[in-house]
Amino acid sequence: MIVVMKPGATREQIAMVCQRLEELGFKAHPIFGQEKTVIGAIGNKRALSSEALVNLPGVERIVPILKPYKLVSKELKDTPTIVRIGGIPVGGRSIVVMAGPCAVEDEEQLFKTAYAVKEAGAQILRGGAFKPRTSPYSFQGLEEEGLRMLARVREETGLPFVTEVLDTRDVPLVAEYADALQIGARNMQNFRLLKEAGATGKPVLLKRGLAATVEEWLLAAEYILDTGNQQVILCERGIRTFETSTRFTLDLAAVAVVKENSHLPVIVDPSHGTGNWRYVLPLARAAIAAGADGLLVEVHPDPAHALCDGPQSLHPETFVRLMDEVTAVAWAVGRGLASSSLSPVVSAAGCKRVGAGLSTHKKETVKVSLRAN
Amino acid sequence: MIVVMKPGATREQIAMVCQRLEELGFKAHPIFGQEKTVIGAIGNKRALSSEALVNLPGVERIVPILKPYKLVSKELKDTPTIVRIGGIPVGGRSIVVMAGPCAVEDEEQLFKTAYAVKEAGAQILRGGAFKPRTSPYSFQGLEEEGLRMLARVREETGLPFVTEVLDTRDVPLVAEYADALQIGARNMQNFRLLKEAGATGKPVLLKRGLAATVEEWLLAAEYILDTGNQQVILCERGIRTFETSTRFTLDLAAVAVVKENSHLPVIVDPSHGTGNWRYVLPLARAAIAAGADGLLVEVHPDPAHALCDGPQSLHPETFVRLMDEVTAVAWAVGRGLASSSLSPVVSAAGCKRVGAGLSTHKKETVKVSLRAN
Amino acid sequence: MIVVMKPGATREQIAMVCQRLEELGFKAHPIFGQEKTVIGAIGNKRALSSEALVNLPGVERIVPILKPYKLVSKELKDTPTIVRIGGIPVGGRSIVVMAGPCAVEDEEQLFKTAYAVKEAGAQILRGGAFKPRTSPYSFQGLEEEGLRMLARVREETGLPFVTEVLDTRDVPLVAEYADALQIGARNMQNFRLLKEAGATGKPVLLKRGLAATVEEWLLAAEYILDTGNQQVILCERGIRTFETSTRFTLDLAAVAVVKENSHLPVIVDPSHGTGNWRYVLPLARAAIAAGADGLLVEVHPDPAHALCDGPQSLHPETFVRLMDEVTAVAWAVGRGLASSSLSPVVSAAGCKRVGAGLSTHKKETVKVSLRAN
Amino acid sequence: MIVVMKPGATREQIAMVCQRLEELGFKAHPIFGQEKTVIGAIGNKRALSSEALVNLPGVERIVPILKPYKLVSKELKDTPTIVRIGGIPVGGRSIVVMAGPCAVEDEEQLFKTAYAVKEAGAQILRGGAFKPRTSPYSFQGLEEEGLRMLARVREETGLPFVTEVLDTRDVPLVAEYADALQIGARNMQNFRLLKEAGATGKPVLLKRGLAATVEEWLLAAEYILDTGNQQVILCERGIRTFETSTRFTLDLAAVAVVKENSHLPVIVDPSHGTGNWRYVLPLARAAIAAGADGLLVEVHPDPAHALCDGPQSLHPETFVRLMDEVTAVAWAVGRGLASSSLSPVVSAAGCKRVGAGLSTHKKETVKVSLRAN
Repeated sequence: MIVVMKPGATREQIAMVCQRLEELGFKAHPIFGQEKTVIGAIGNKRALSSEALVNLPGVERIVPILKPYKLVSKELKDTPTIVRIGGIPVGGRSIVVMAGPCAVEDEEQLFKTAYAVKEAGAQILRGGAFKPRTSPYSFQGLEEEGLRMLARVREETGLPFVTEVLDTRDVPLVAEYADALQIGARNMQNFRLLKEAGATGKPVLLKRGLAATVEEWLLAAEYILDTGNQQVILCERGIRTFETSTRFTLDLAAVAVVKENSHLPVIVDPSHGTGNWRYVLPLARAAIAAGADGLLVEVHPDPAHALCDGPQSLHPETFVRLMDEVTAVAWAVGRGLASSSLSPVVSAAGCKRVGAGLSTHKKETVKVSLRAN
Repeated sequence: MIVVMKPGATREQIAMVCQRLEELGFKAHPIFGQEKTVIGAIGNKRALSSEALVNLPGVERIVPILKPYKLVSKELKDTPTIVRIGGIPVGGRSIVVMAGPCAVEDEEQLFKTAYAVKEAGAQILRGGAFKPRTSPYSFQGLEEEGLRMLARVREETGLPFVTEVLDTRDVPLVAEYADALQIGARNMQNFRLLKEAGATGKPVLLKRGLAATVEEWLLAAEYILDTGNQQVILCERGIRTFETSTRFTLDLAAVAVVKENSHLPVIVDPSHGTGNWRYVLPLARAAIAAGADGLLVEVHPDPAHALCDGPQSLHPETFVRLMDEVTAVAWAVGRGLASSSLSPVVSAAGCKRVGAGLSTHKKETVKVSLRAN
Repeated sequence: MIVVMKPGATREQIAMVCQRLEELGFKAHPIFGQEKTVIGAIGNKRALSSEALVNLPGVERIVPILKPYKLVSKELKDTPTIVRIGGIPVGGRSIVVMAGPCAVEDEEQLFKTAYAVKEAGAQILRGGAFKPRTSPYSFQGLEEEGLRMLARVREETGLPFVTEVLDTRDVPLVAEYADALQIGARNMQNFRLLKEAGATGKPVLLKRGLAATVEEWLLAAEYILDTGNQQVILCERGIRTFETSTRFTLDLAAVAVVKENSHLPVIVDPSHGTGNWRYVLPLARAAIAAGADGLLVEVHPDPAHALCDGPQSLHPETFVRLMDEVTAVAWAVGRGLASSSLSPVVSAAGCKRVGAGLSTHKKETVKVSLRAN
Repeated sequence: MIVVMKPGATREQIAMVCQRLEELGFKAHPIFGQEKTVIGAIGNKRALSSEALVNLPGVERIVPILKPYKLVSKELKDTPTIVRIGGIPVGGRSIVVMAGPCAVEDEEQLFKTAYAVKEAGAQILRGGAFKPRTSPYSFQGLEEEGLRMLARVREETGLPFVTEVLDTRDVPLVAEYADALQIGARNMQNFRLLKEAGATGKPVLLKRGLAATVEEWLLAAEYILDTGNQQVILCERGIRTFETSTRFTLDLAAVAVVKENSHLPVIVDPSHGTGNWRYVLPLARAAIAAGADGLLVEVHPDPAHALCDGPQSLHPETFVRLMDEVTAVAWAVGRGLASSSLSPVVSAAGCKRVGAGLSTHKKETVKVSLRAN
């Protein structure tokens, strides 16, 4: 921590700050500049309310030096964490695609979607049973009945599923059914929910809040790791900006920033991130090219009749195209697609692979399974 | 609702949209323009997933015409709602100031602050027992012990109090102690919490989410009113923008927008809104001048040692100045300060009062209690 | 400047940074912490490309300590600068209101507006002859003919005028006619234009860019002061945020931030800041309460037929109400309205005045000129 | 255009709006809903100040239906425009990379950089002679001397160059030297500069303003096309948001939005977009995957000594890696790299290519030129 003093700060004011720092357990190192004095404070106490020092006379501002998070940090652990959802590894060499409807509406819709996304190569099913809706008059989800449908579909298709939990009181119920718990963007700083979800030991998919900085997002993840649960996947889903041609602004640099600072896997949701199915494919490709470990994609067998997020849901045929395109990009950046029994594979022979830290794995010869776009 | 068709939309596509609109219970009125056709859809169904129509062939976009909220709307009720917190009316002619520490730290701190803010003229005490903190390593609040302290202070000082509730599971506990429940900015779209808080029948102070539009904020209030509880106070507390010289950007136009569209009272929190005690006074004055019904202000007897939000907390002496300045502005806009037994009063004699809709109340002669600034 | 080294930075890397700092003319003071080393760099060289140091091996980031501006800073000059536009002082005790149409359309419109705003108490006329328009198909202004009209109106009404200049090539022409040159928000970082406008020696009204931080805004002003021209008025006019219920988000905290850091006067434009005449009055009151030195307001005799910015233009009758309300608030914060021959005045007798640094001026007895709201 | 009336609007008010619409040359079609009346206005007058209608009594708001731009629109021309910079086609099947230093500093630096980027495969040189700098104390560019250096380097290396023009007065000079004129982000709405640059007939590289919506950006391009010059390349370079871990937020969805609405080519600047060389590679890959037609990248032979934008400049070795990685992604999305004599090529044999509308071109067998990463 650096304490920056005001230009006219007196020796007494500087001494008082140094004394207060020592009280707080820091060692104080003043540097007397020509215009301003700054005081370096040595000590690794992160969580102190040291910002309150700004109220001492003569203090201009406080500059933190240490990152506010520890457990999620690459400084603590510099190998990538691999999270397993129903046996599917997220965060390893291969890309993982989680797909399904925004909301579980009925069993037919869910089965149709699940088979379609599985056949196209998705490895994990997504679907909401508890829905956070901006309006109290919108469809709020099938709740436990939706969870039961998801479980039945998992049994038949073999696809593990991730679903959102909204309320601390529902955590045990959702954890009983789901392979992974999703914390939605609007709950990213619902710290009680983070703790309860973490305490289940289940993998947690933590969406970025729509006005959260990457640092706040990592601190939210820190809450979960602090419960002893390292199985956290971060999910970039767009932030609020002034731009209105898309529903949110997908911040793909955040993928690179997370990779620079944390060992946790990070995936991208191009459906919420754009709010418009026309833009889902290019942004899905871009996400993988930026280094994301996977995608979360909304697919609906009949988007025009969807009860939720129809405008951003892909028709299954378009999703097949998405999988093809994403697979090609995954290979181009030195990664492939994680396999599931029906998953398509693409030949990498002769295809140059790039991507930091991924150059060591050996070339694999894989079969090409083509399908009409 | 208006459905805008793409430039080349065919007669068949237009007919299909009209048919789908009729299925959804609307009456369709196509208007054939030179470049584009638009279809007016008559019907007052707000909550339909009509946005999904955008997926029909030939559709460019959907323009909603009706406001998505009803119960909070001035179109439904055009007289201002007055909310009572422990007998103090919020939303009437007089301004209400709620003040106190960010977090309840100990009984001495709380008593000191409560007496100081009461003497300066505040009518309601604020203080956090459950604290939402960005970092898991920060002080998380005294929880029930904090609530008990608040209740003891209320008993001695006569000040009713408002305190935040974070978790649906804590709602009954907090409602047992508090005069009003605060929903924090980070929980504005924690819809379960909104419903539970609403169901207690207690007044709810609903802070605006830091990335919430005014419309989303009013929809969050709609969730509470939908439980049958009209006792909702809105609180503007700054939004996230690119500007970094203040912690948030206090959006005072939002006060005017709320007043234009809703009957609910709206107050302003200049402490969180700026994050810097130096800017609290000017923004407090501005909030009242903009038409706010009151203020929520952080005061701490020793800001340099505060466990939470020290940089934005006012020293009690500065708070006295705030009350003087705010009172003068309140009179200038045709409003005064709600009284509490020790509250200061200011003569309005000869002072011209302005402010829409406030011109009817009679002039009052009040005593001036001056104090040094 | 502080150079923060990465956790694992070697002694050699630290030594290399120190050496490079000395080359750049700084004195280097390393402080070796437990996790990280930071290096204090002493020297008052602001404009060095020292940010490039971040590329040296082992460097994590650079933290500037000195403010990047000098001439506009209160650290250099701590008495308020008073700018004179045609003899009217801006930045002193009294509030100044500049009002008029967005664009000069014809002589009748301009005369009508000028007389109306003068009678209501405005001291300066505003009006655009060169208009920056988002669309090439919108009205682009009357150019020199507009300037001539403004000059004729000045001659008849005695109101000095401020008008925008868009192009370095037009600076001499506009300076020949106008009492003050306006640099619009979209040109705030048109640095050539800043220099040319500054070089005329005329007062410059510098609007904040819609995505400019306060620091960048002050740096833009620094360009003008760097030409030797101190006659700069800053104008807050709203920033771009996600909120859509207003055209921009008026950042009134910026007024307080400017007052904390600079000696320059700052006024507020609530017309552009909200984009909706309904919100102009409350925000005008709030601006003065926040400490602004004046207002820039759009008034049009027939807003429904305005060629530019009709939705945010006030009808002259509403402008009269604005002047009354703003005057009352100005008195409440210890300031009055600068006089012009027809200006309204309000009794301050018995009205308590507040406002930092403004408590010394003596009470004045002034006449009340009432008018119907 | 749709005029939405307020809930209680009277028949007279509706009639008055219809009459005003007819005066303005529209045909009015009122639709009487249960709560509100809306009036469809038929006519293709885009540039009318029809927004002023909002001031008529009983009007709630105006909803535009037609896009405000025409010439840049895909509705007018649905084949991609190809812009030629010194013979290099931008906007065709192949990706184009423009690289070079932020500012031209001296001849040695420029030659070194030019040879390095050419050898790595870049087809166009970039470099600033006139520099817009936030601070008046920063290096402002070599001006004409810089242009002469760029011309000499072009002569020797064969690389055409693009350079920024800041001032209408410099347009003829810059156009005399440069192969393409760059309009910087801060000048995107310097409409006079747009017109002058357009009038030269030279290709114009139009950077997106940092607070500009895609619609405003396309309207800025419309100004250029309106001069008769269709040679416009759009360049996304990051927008201002609340996120601080990167300098700006690169909005890659904007690439897809432009492609959906306009025939103009669009490239991406990951250097300014992130402000940190560590994030340039992943975002460069992502930009191409999203569908961008090329890249604008800052490269400096010694970033730690750069006079401008050092932190975001790539070392030539890292730029070689960028070119390799970007080439692989370009092939994956069905595109390759435009050739220059020394450009590297990569085998596409066996590599599946995807990308909308690009599937028809025949497979090409190309040589692989490997280099160490």
